[in-house]
Amino acid sequence: MKKVLVLLHPGFEEIEAITAVDLLRRAGITVTTASVTKDLKILGSRNVSVMADALLSACADQIFDMLLIPGGPGVDALRMRPEVLELVRKFRNEQGYIAAICAAPLVLMDAGITSNLTVTSFPGSEEEFTGQVRSYVQDRVHIDGKVITSRGAGTSEEFALTLISLLLNPEAAEQVRQRIVAR
Amino acid sequence: MKKVLVLLHPGFEEIEAITAVDLLRRAGITVTTASVTKDLKILGSRNVSVMADALLSACADQIFDMLLIPGGPGVDALRMRPEVLELVRKFRNEQGYIAAICAAPLVLMDAGITSNLTVTSFPGSEEEFTGQVRSYVQDRVHIDGKVITSRGAGTSEEFALTLISLLLNPEAAEQVRQRIVAR
Repeated sequence: MKKVLVLLHPGFEEIEAITAVDLLRRAGITVTTASVTKDLKILGSRNVSVMADALLSACADQIFDMLLIPGGPGVDALRMRPEVLELVRKFRNEQGYIAAICAAPLVLMDAGITSNLTVTSFPGSEEEFTGQVRSYVQDRVHIDGKVITSRGAGTSEEFALTLISLLLNPEAAEQVRQRIVAR
Repeated sequence: MKKVLVLLHPGFEEIEAITAVDLLRRAGITVTTASVTKDLKILGSRNVSVMADALLSACADQIFDMLLIPGGPGVDALRMRPEVLELVRKFRNEQGYIAAICAAPLVLMDAGITSNLTVTSFPGSEEEFTGQVRSYVQDRVHIDGKVITSRGAGTSEEFALTLISLLLNPEAAEQVRQRIVAR
């Protein structure tokens, strides 16, 4: 059984977080949403309050196959959290998957793991990556080994289906894709 | 300022509800999420708990331009709620917009408003509409006057952008579409 840890941070982009949680759970993957604050209730960027499954501080001892970070304006504050940057480095060192969408690839950059990686991100964040990555691409979803990056709320579905394909197999992703009447 | 009432029901499909709320709010539309139960906290179909903005029972006196109903397995129970069927009839009688996605068009059928309408829905619900609608189509989003129907989580983005286009104008929808890096 594959396990994924999704970080929920104040100001997270709701579509990016919820689409991943929903589609991965449809595929039978165990998803834990973890609040980076001391409160399970987290307010997203478009004023939707979501209850996280756990506090991140309570997840430290568990083992996950993937760390997934949604974007949104909350990423600015997320980049200031040393425990989150440390978590990214831990996943990288232990060869887990790391998935980040929209502005969230900036967290990977701040954690210092991107210098040998090719990434994409929200178009508005592109310039910040100059000199910090091997190369920057404008793919809707980009896979570089175990690090998967994507661009925004409108690429969330492709991002989530790619993650299912990597964690399980392409057939599992295709089943979910058909079930939701995706394009 | 346009106002939209989104019904949240236990077992609602998270992507369908959240995508609409998020994108409509991005367009500057005032969206109120209303719980159909006595609890603001509502558990979706893929175990995401969301806090509604209000109880539906507290929204009775307000005027909205659109009623929006997300799908999900919770629609089975929603169809049993006389106050919800009455609400659908009220919007229809007062010529408000009614938007329903996935299994939610069945609620419109049960409210008795579909006999002269062309609708779509989740593919699995198609047969239930036999003899209850003017015609059934497999469009990803279908507009019949002020009633807009759509098919599933994978058509949520097109559904929401269509609603923005109708409530505001096509330029507003296009702005949101570009901002989220939609296809």
